[in-house]
Formats: sequence, structure tokens, C-alpha cells
Amino acid sequence: MGHGGGGALSAELVEHLFAPAYGNDLLAGLADSTALTLAGTRLAFSTDSYVVRPLFFPGGSIGDLAVNGTVNDLAMSGARAAYLSCAFILEEGTDLSVVGRIAQAVGAAAVAAGVSIATGDTKVVDAGHGDGVFINTSGIGLIPHGVDIRPQRATPGDLVIVSGPIGMHGVAIMSVREGLEFGVEVTSDTAPLGGLVDAMLDVTPDLHTLRDPTRGGVATALNEIAAASGTGVLLHEHAVPVPEPVAGACGFLGLDPLYVANEGRLLAFVPRSHADAVLAAMRAHPLGAQAAVIGECVTEHPGMVVARTRFGGTRVVDLPLGEQLPRIC
Amino acid sequence: MGHGGGGALSAELVEHLFAPAYGNDLLAGLADSTALTLAGTRLAFSTDSYVVRPLFFPGGSIGDLAVNGTVNDLAMSGARAAYLSCAFILEEGTDLSVVGRIAQAVGAAAVAAGVSIATGDTKVVDAGHGDGVFINTSGIGLIPHGVDIRPQRATPGDLVIVSGPIGMHGVAIMSVREGLEFGVEVTSDTAPLGGLVDAMLDVTPDLHTLRDPTRGGVATALNEIAAASGTGVLLHEHAVPVPEPVAGACGFLGLDPLYVANEGRLLAFVPRSHADAVLAAMRAHPLGAQAAVIGECVTEHPGMVVARTRFGGTRVVDLPLGEQLPRIC
Repeated sequence: MGHGGGGALSAELVEHLFAPAYGNDLLAGLADSTALTLAGTRLAFSTDSYVVRPLFFPGGSIGDLAVNGTVNDLAMSGARAAYLSCAFILEEGTDLSVVGRIAQAVGAAAVAAGVSIATGDTKVVDAGHGDGVFINTSGIGLIPHGVDIRPQRATPGDLVIVSGPIGMHGVAIMSVREGLEFGVEVTSDTAPLGGLVDAMLDVTPDLHTLRDPTRGGVATALNEIAAASGTGVLLHEHAVPVPEPVAGACGFLGLDPLYVANEGRLLAFVPRSHADAVLAAMRAHPLGAQAAVIGECVTEHPGMVVARTRFGGTRVVDLPLGEQLPRIC
Repeated sequence: MGHGGGGALSAELVEHLFAPAYGNDLLAGLADSTALTLAGTRLAFSTDSYVVRPLFFPGGSIGDLAVNGTVNDLAMSGARAAYLSCAFILEEGTDLSVVGRIAQAVGAAAVAAGVSIATGDTKVVDAGHGDGVFINTSGIGLIPHGVDIRPQRATPGDLVIVSGPIGMHGVAIMSVREGLEFGVEVTSDTAPLGGLVDAMLDVTPDLHTLRDPTRGGVATALNEIAAASGTGVLLHEHAVPVPEPVAGACGFLGLDPLYVANEGRLLAFVPRSHADAVLAAMRAHPLGAQAAVIGECVTEHPGMVVARTRFGGTRVVDLPLGEQLPRIC
């Protein structure tokens, strides 16, 4: 299961199995989406499959995730999603009313994100060889002129901004899956981030790196960026916004919120000179109201993420081997 | 299972469930790929999931199908595939050497088709909730200027050309799945059709309709085109190239070769004035060496496919309800 968790095992699979087999370097850097040029037009292209369990959870469904996840992967290249594909793999016997509700959620999420579902496919597999509904979405969007957002561009001096409180999607899934109650219901943060990124790009096209910390959470995203860019990342742990119910649930379950999945948050690596203005623009947007600076890029410990703890100490924030919680998206 | 078979039940699902939920008309006509305009560039965009069982079969594997299938869907809009995404859903416990062999097949098929794998994703589901390996590929390609190939453009007077012998993919799958032997081994016809379509477009950009008759076979493809365009299709049954081992296997199994899946063939609806030249260009290409005119568009029986039989009679060739053989691709 670890190979699908977005951690070190997933990265190994790409590096040692898929990338050599495909014989090109487009997968290098493990970006959320790939920037391409086609007939002189710069496009972002991205794909993700969604196998979340259960199909419906507080704050959304697999349909919302499938749209927002791919819209967000495109936004992490600075691209505004234009068109999505949407392919269903249904398990024989799945109630068509369930499929209908999910399709409605896909449609509503597409409208909210300003993207059109352009093409689709449906396959059915025998009972016992699927799990209700799996969805793949792929998306294409235009990258504006002058925008070059990549993990490799993070550089010492950049400030690291998170767009809002972390860990809500993962805890929402855990609460329904495990039948746990944490006093206050935590709802998934699933949301389309294209508008927030547009507001940030209005301040400056010179954002260095964007990433939505989904599988593997903030810790994994920071590690991937540190590895791709070779910069060190210093995380100010006390500055990371962790909602009280998320902190409580993680304490109860023995999890670290830094590793819990988010589906409507982003991390931005921004040149220090632009950081105040970018932060202000984020806070003026509904999806960035609680944005905060949580770290910086440093010349020390290149390629590594180190957290300064509440108590003034430091600790290495590792890439997880697999995933704390499988099938989170 | 019928909802995934590409027949009437699949069409109903799109028409009554997905298209209304998505609230746009991009899915109308059930084309293999959708033509889009992005920043003034005309693109084709397509997606397909592959759930074929078994993963390896005479003539290819799920990896070949996943590349060729999406390359072909793009080619059916006249587009040369440029970039593919490739997303794996693995079942927990699947041997990584199997995944590696499939990734190698994907890479080799991409080289053969002249397309780059630009972006990918891997998810893992628990044992018993998947079936080894499922793959989704989506693809984008440029549509040349002056090319407008759509099911709606088929029109009375067009000749219908098939690019080669039919039914080989479906019979190859059946032979391994059912452990049947038909004397001669039938291998899948899986192949990338972009080069063949380029050769046809060199004759004239005015091809009306192209379709690769995959799930549901030639009969289903002809029915979809007749329905989308409102033209009648008259099929000369004796002219359809059915290889002897395919005919034998279908006789033995009680199947009609017209409904058996192909993965490296195309149907072309061509204005009569260009038909000879297009046919000659097809026969000069390795993948069209056995191309043949198999029918024509007529004003009679609009929206219906009628076959003239070997014995001079006629019969209606219906859209199948589901699929003769599930999980063929």
C-alpha cells in the first residue's frame, strides 16, 4: 500500500520504474503538473486517479476531490484549468444512484472551478475486482506568459507560506472511516485553488514554487521541494496553523498533522521581497484568509527539511516511507 | 457489466447521467476525442481507462492498449498525439515485476507512436478491491488546419472504408481467457493509427468521419455514426475482411465478428470523389495494406445500419445492448 501513499516508496516507483521505462525527463522533479509547449502555446497537463474511501465524507465526495485535485495540480504550475477529462471505473453492482450523485458533484465542482468536462469514459469491472467507484481526471490549462513555477526554483531566501489551516481533509476521512468522533466535526478542505493562485500572480508572476500538500501532507511536499531544488527548508513549527480538532484527533491517533492530507491548501515559495504583498493578497481571498508564513529556505542542510520546535529545539522532518492513512484521495 | 461495454447501455449512461450532470455539450456525439480551442490552438483531448483481463495476451499487453487506444482516439479527430498522461491503479500485492513489464510496454508503445508520457500518477488499493493493474491514459494532440473530422459529418454518398481485417483483438483475448485454441493463434491487432491517418490526410483534409471500432466492434461504431449524423449506413457484408481464424472462433462461440473488438483498425467515412485515392494511400501503409470499402452512406433508413448479406437479403445491424465480452480493453 505504501507505493501509493505519496511518500518515499511512491517516489522510488517513479524514479526507478516509470521514468526509465518512459525514456523522457518530463516526470523529473515530481511536479504536480507538467509544463508543455504545443504549437507555441504553454500548457500544463496533469493526471490523478481517485480511490478515496468512503465515497462521501464530511465536506465533499470523490467527485469534488476528482475535480479540485486536478484543478489544483494545474494551478501549482500557475495554470488556470480549462478542460478536464473524467473517467469512471465502476464495480459491477454499484448503485447507479450513487454514480449519479457523484456525477452531479463532478458537474457542480467543475462549475465552481470554472472548468469544462471535455471528455469521459466509463469502464465496469466484475464485482470483487473494484471498489464502487474509482475516478481519473486529467486536465489541461494555459500557463500565463512570464510564469515559471517549478519545485526546482525554490531558493535560499524564499519565504514559505501556507494558505490555511492544515490536516482537515485527512482527519475528516479518518473520522468517518474509523467511526471516530472528535467533539467537533471536521470537514474536508477540498476546494479549487485556481482563483487564489490568480490573486497571487496578480501581485507578481515571480512565484518560485507552489504545491498542494495532499497525500503525505505538508512534510512530504516540503521534502519533495527541498530535494528537487537542493535548498534547505527551515520550518517554524509554532507558525503552522493546526485547527484545534485536528490537533486533538492527531493526538488521539498518534499522528503528526504535518503528514496529514489536505485537498484545498497550497504551499508557496515566494521571494522575500514579494512575500508581504503576496500574503496580503492571499488573506484577501476566501481560501487564503488564514494564510501564514511558516518557514524559509536556507543555505544550511541543503535538500533537507528541519523544523524549529515550539521549545526552541530542531528536528529533521523526514519524507514518510508510505502513507499514514491509505486511500485518502 | 453492460454499462461498460460500449453499447446501448453505455450510451444511455452518458446521455442520461453524465452529460446532464456536467452541463455542457462537449460530450455530444460520443466522439472518441473532443476538439477544443485553447489560446487559438485547436486541440484534441481524450481519456480512456484500461481494465483488460488478462494483463498480457497474444500480440500485446494492457500497456500497449493504454498507449495505442488513446493515440487512436486522438487520431480519430485527425490529431497527431503529442503528450499522454498515464495513471496506474495497482492492487495491493501486485508483483512489481509485472508493473515494471507493463511500464516498459507503455514506454515502448509511446516511442512507436511518437508520443511522450508527460505526467503520471500511481494509486494503490487494498487487495480484493482492484484487479492487478488498471491504467488510465489521457492524451492531447494538435488538429491540423482545415481538418474537421466528426461523427456528425458522415453524409449520404460517403463510402465507408475499413483499414484491415476485423475481430482479431477480441478473439485474441477470448482465446487466452477461455483457454481456447482455434488452430491458428490469433494475435491482437493493437497498433497506433496516427501515421495511417496522416497518410490519409495527405490525400485530402476532407475526411468526414473516423472511428476505431473498439468495444462493441464495427457494428457499434457504425451505429453511433449513423445516429450522430442521421445518415443511413448500408454495409456490404461480403466485403468485410474477416480472417479465417476469427470467423472460425466466432462460429464456435456463437459470436458475430461485426461486434468483436479491434484495437488497431479504423473506419473512415470518405466523400466518394476522394475514396479511390484515400484507399490507395491506406493500402500503401503497413497498417492499411488490407483496407477495403465495406459500405456507403445512403438516404434510406436514416440513422440505421443495414447489412446486405452474402445471399442478397438485408438485415438490420443493431447497437448491442451491452458487450459480448466484458473487459476487452
